[in-house]
Amino acid sequence: MIRKYTFGKPFPTGAVVRELKAETGPVPYFRVSREEGRVILRLDLSPEEIIFGLGESVRGINKRGHTYRSWNMDITNHTEDKASLYGSHNFLLFYRPDRMIGLYVDDPGLVSFDLGETRLSEAVITSENGDLDLYVIENGSLKETVREFRELIGRSYLPPRWAFGYIQSRWGYTGEENVRAVVKSHREKHIPLDGVCLDIDYMVDFKNFTWKPSAFPDWKRFNEEMKREHIRLIPIIDAGIKQEKGYEPYDTGLARDAFCRKEDGTPFTAAVWPGLCCFPDFLNADARKWFGDLYRPLLEEGVEGFWNDMNEPSLFYSPEALRDCYRQALEQCERVNDYQGMWSLKSSLDGLANSGKDFRSFYHRTEQGRIRHDRVHNLYGAKMVQASAEGIRRCLPGRRYLLFSRSSFTGSHRDGGIWQGDNYSWWEHIRLAMQMMPGLNMCGYLFSGCDLGGFALNTTEDLLARFLQLGVFLPLMRNHSALYTREQEIYRFDSWEKMRDTITVRYALLPFLYSEFMKAALRNEMYFRPLAFDYPEDSRALRVEDQLMLGEDCMIAPIYEQNAGGRYVYLPEDMLMIRFRAAGDYDLIPLEKGDHYLEFGLHEFPLFVRKNRPALLCAGGESTDELDDTSLTALGWMEGAAEYDLYRDDGLQAEPKLEEHLNRIRVEGKPGVFRYTLS
Amino acid sequence: MIRKYTFGKPFPTGAVVRELKAETGPVPYFRVSREEGRVILRLDLSPEEIIFGLGESVRGINKRGHTYRSWNMDITNHTEDKASLYGSHNFLLFYRPDRMIGLYVDDPGLVSFDLGETRLSEAVITSENGDLDLYVIENGSLKETVREFRELIGRSYLPPRWAFGYIQSRWGYTGEENVRAVVKSHREKHIPLDGVCLDIDYMVDFKNFTWKPSAFPDWKRFNEEMKREHIRLIPIIDAGIKQEKGYEPYDTGLARDAFCRKEDGTPFTAAVWPGLCCFPDFLNADARKWFGDLYRPLLEEGVEGFWNDMNEPSLFYSPEALRDCYRQALEQCERVNDYQGMWSLKSSLDGLANSGKDFRSFYHRTEQGRIRHDRVHNLYGAKMVQASAEGIRRCLPGRRYLLFSRSSFTGSHRDGGIWQGDNYSWWEHIRLAMQMMPGLNMCGYLFSGCDLGGFALNTTEDLLARFLQLGVFLPLMRNHSALYTREQEIYRFDSWEKMRDTITVRYALLPFLYSEFMKAALRNEMYFRPLAFDYPEDSRALRVEDQLMLGEDCMIAPIYEQNAGGRYVYLPEDMLMIRFRAAGDYDLIPLEKGDHYLEFGLHEFPLFVRKNRPALLCAGGESTDELDDTSLTALGWMEGAAEYDLYRDDGLQAEPKLEEHLNRIRVEGKPGVFRYTLS
Repeated sequence: MIRKYTFGKPFPTGAVVRELKAETGPVPYFRVSREEGRVILRLDLSPEEIIFGLGESVRGINKRGHTYRSWNMDITNHTEDKASLYGSHNFLLFYRPDRMIGLYVDDPGLVSFDLGETRLSEAVITSENGDLDLYVIENGSLKETVREFRELIGRSYLPPRWAFGYIQSRWGYTGEENVRAVVKSHREKHIPLDGVCLDIDYMVDFKNFTWKPSAFPDWKRFNEEMKREHIRLIPIIDAGIKQEKGYEPYDTGLARDAFCRKEDGTPFTAAVWPGLCCFPDFLNADARKWFGDLYRPLLEEGVEGFWNDMNEPSLFYSPEALRDCYRQALEQCERVNDYQGMWSLKSSLDGLANSGKDFRSFYHRTEQGRIRHDRVHNLYGAKMVQASAEGIRRCLPGRRYLLFSRSSFTGSHRDGGIWQGDNYSWWEHIRLAMQMMPGLNMCGYLFSGCDLGGFALNTTEDLLARFLQLGVFLPLMRNHSALYTREQEIYRFDSWEKMRDTITVRYALLPFLYSEFMKAALRNEMYFRPLAFDYPEDSRALRVEDQLMLGEDCMIAPIYEQNAGGRYVYLPEDMLMIRFRAAGDYDLIPLEKGDHYLEFGLHEFPLFVRKNRPALLCAGGESTDELDDTSLTALGWMEGAAEYDLYRDDGLQAEPKLEEHLNRIRVEGKPGVFRYTLS
Repeated sequence: MIRKYTFGKPFPTGAVVRELKAETGPVPYFRVSREEGRVILRLDLSPEEIIFGLGESVRGINKRGHTYRSWNMDITNHTEDKASLYGSHNFLLFYRPDRMIGLYVDDPGLVSFDLGETRLSEAVITSENGDLDLYVIENGSLKETVREFRELIGRSYLPPRWAFGYIQSRWGYTGEENVRAVVKSHREKHIPLDGVCLDIDYMVDFKNFTWKPSAFPDWKRFNEEMKREHIRLIPIIDAGIKQEKGYEPYDTGLARDAFCRKEDGTPFTAAVWPGLCCFPDFLNADARKWFGDLYRPLLEEGVEGFWNDMNEPSLFYSPEALRDCYRQALEQCERVNDYQGMWSLKSSLDGLANSGKDFRSFYHRTEQGRIRHDRVHNLYGAKMVQASAEGIRRCLPGRRYLLFSRSSFTGSHRDGGIWQGDNYSWWEHIRLAMQMMPGLNMCGYLFSGCDLGGFALNTTEDLLARFLQLGVFLPLMRNHSALYTREQEIYRFDSWEKMRDTITVRYALLPFLYSEFMKAALRNEMYFRPLAFDYPEDSRALRVEDQLMLGEDCMIAPIYEQNAGGRYVYLPEDMLMIRFRAAGDYDLIPLEKGDHYLEFGLHEFPLFVRKNRPALLCAGGESTDELDDTSLTALGWMEGAAEYDLYRDDGLQAEPKLEEHLNRIRVEGKPGVFRYTLS
């Protein structure tokens, strides 16, 4: 059951696709107050209460004990104290044995969630706008509550099947020679690969929709060459449009009045990679149309996938703020030995980027009239994704496309995936990446992943190996790293063959993982779930923070600690452990319900499968194009026969019907642990 | 067996107290090369090789897989990528079943330890100075190798017994009214307390050895008042001396030529808290004498303990570097829309503090002649500790004093303890604090602890509770926090009574923990050890990263994850778990060797004791003065009788003889788990 409550005049965010009538009575469970325009909800928390949700955010699967702020931010340093990351996903589940509440706060401005930080026994949710729709969802189980929420917000984005292949990326692939060498190394060493991402290096002066003619002399031909190698190029597109006369997107954007404006009517500008930029008014339908059409030339040259970046939006500084800062610097220069003044200058410089003042200084022209940016801030990236998706769909009607974005707000899950932004080459970030997945899935972001190996800082061989092992199960399996960091294509490391073996597991599992993904997406279910969702009566399962259910019947438990020789795993029921070393090299170990310490060498990692359910492996291949899913090996711990519905399609059709693509497979053999070949 | 190898002309650091003759043959195990003045040692690492040591540093107990740099730094953000913290402890143990090597690098300059970061299979140790003594120690077992190293470097500092009491601290206790209120709240609420630290707020303009007359109108009387409450005041002393004519330490320091000088012979100055300061030349014996005597007035007014801070040394900036920076700012102001320039300015400002250039710009006058600071950088804090300790000992001959420092270098473990510096209110930092302890113990830093609750950022109730539980077992049990963060005296939280109960456990265990500490210190043993030291044949124990052996027969396993309902514990043998809630409220649970998932409420935490060995509790008290250790309760899981040697002394004598203070206690009763009252 969903109940909707409306406060003030909410801005229509597009998060929700079902029109509900607002209730007139009081909001159940919560104490609601209005203070200085804000709406504040309070809920007493019992000691055993667990809080799931909030999508992309730091800390654990259980969000209790910290204050989160929905305020999309370009922020690389994802430590446990951070309140905001790149996306806002205002969905929460309050769970305790006698009470389960789903809550969605449909508000595109700043919403803070003090989930027991100030007082362990109280959650305090504050909408700064005070204009919002609140949805309270109660539906028997955690799974069903999420499913009902997902029906409310509409079906998740479906990527093409090739997007489940391994993707190599790096900020620093400057031209086709560079890309060709990377692809050649993968192919020569038989490292499976399906795509290469191009970061901002490919553009002319970081200008969207351009490519360096010297570095990419024939873009179309190069795309074709890559496709012969079964490689898709995936260029980046940023939010800002360089302010430069003669640069077509700038000229046409101005002419179409497609940019956000300041109070005085002039376009708002701020520096990002290209220098001073204007910012498309993605909240305006005309501007979205204009921007979406800018993708056409790239699509016509053969591109089938993009990633959208810097769309929180990220602002390095506005000229106004920088001038203030330099004024301060000039004054400070005369007070040389005043360290407080020096710190204050430092703090002004640090505060230049993404400043609240700048976000309050420009406006959107929407169907609801002119609205100041900060009131709808969290929508910006989502609406960019919508613009891109609509533009791509106009070019490739009926076909799926790859699109993933850094910034997001509920609603954009229908148009694209997201990656988890600029993580670090930290062991801590393997765990964090895993912990974010179920929250993202709750809000419909099924196609997601983290930068494997870590984006910022230097990776190490063992860290990359463990990141890749998590990556085997992430829908988006991308190795990505920042300029000036250690190169992290796997073939640069002593044990690259072992890492290649890890990637072969992904390709062997790909038809099965794709099937699990598509079934979850088409049924409004989660691909990754906290164990609590499947075992709500099991008090131990409720609090497991480092294992996830995957698809219908599997569980993952990544190894995320350096120098670990193994790890603890809690099995909420009997399961088969497949301890992988390579697609064709694994142990099958039946394990009973309960606690286990399991040993894993550096290049070993597990997948767990419920008793009497199969996991399926295909023969693998070096690209998704070459996968043969007509002959499969079923692995299971069986007492009798089992049936599995394998989802298969062409990997490209935009609107597949689930029932038309399910292939019932019957797995039978002698009871016990077995491998069984199907065809 | 210890072998010494000398390269070049090492500076005598004072780390080692035994004079050994240098070997003439090649260094065993290591490939040694000289490259551009550096000395480089290389060692191949087998896959199973574990590396212990390096004292105060980030990451796990097993240091493999990262590059560490011994270069003392004022650095608050202890994330896993950091290479340096406040102290340098160049002792390592390379352990694998067929080989164990202890290595000590006696070099006060920059030494880097690439322990398998660049290549997992190789350790590369680089001395930038190229002048160093190398000690290779091989002695049968990990424990014996450490003991032999500890004999080489001399006996650990012994704090007075009262220093094992609970200490409340905060940057922000501005005057006696403030301190009095904190003490009153503890006493009224029966929260045990033995000391209050005064941070820089107590001084006049942050000038060492001054106190604000308005805030502390009668320092001596206030000390007496506090002592009647069984509270010791523990003021901070920083390294820098404010450059201000008329300020006595500055005037006398100048007159005595006690400050570090630049190339041109003028005193080196840099800004720290008081503004521009001169820096005592602690490497000069005269300057140490002068500085040590500055403690006398405070001691005469009743102070018995100090903490030494900012002694890496921390430099906010030198006037020269700041001028360069402002010059850059002025130039940049004319290129307003050049974000690279803006970033470069930001990076210059960020680089002002603790810059290598500044550390290369001043000199020490030593018995070995004038030496540039960077060549001996890591000695600075240790020599400040030596100066303080010598000064205090001159005033309080034959008596123990409390002294703990932020910066350290092997050798200073004989003169004082250390705290782990400015941590954060992060869950991650509970674990890190624990993981640093055994490495510190290896180098003789037995009296140590972290800022409980976290120094920077806001703590939360549950975080503080879990920090305190670790603190129960840390020799230095101090709650400390930074200005502008949430106040974190325990009585400010809803569940303060439960936290008080946690502190009562410390006081009940205090005679036992003190006994274990003193025995370890007087025997050159470790108070905290990795499990590997006690169970080197147990491949599981070798890799345990979140449990520590404590004293002769105990083990701790702190809970360091938010919202955890328990944790996994590996028992390398049968042990009794004492699950504490309060001094008089605990469960006794015998557990068999192996893996266990153990449940702990937020205010529950365990101590494990080997079978047939007792842990002892006294009746507790609200200060160490009031503890009654004449009647003790023994807790154990016994098969028969057991004997325990309880160390007891007056808690103050400077040179206790171990044998004179051991009291043999015989514990007997019916086999099984029991409580047994002794008197």
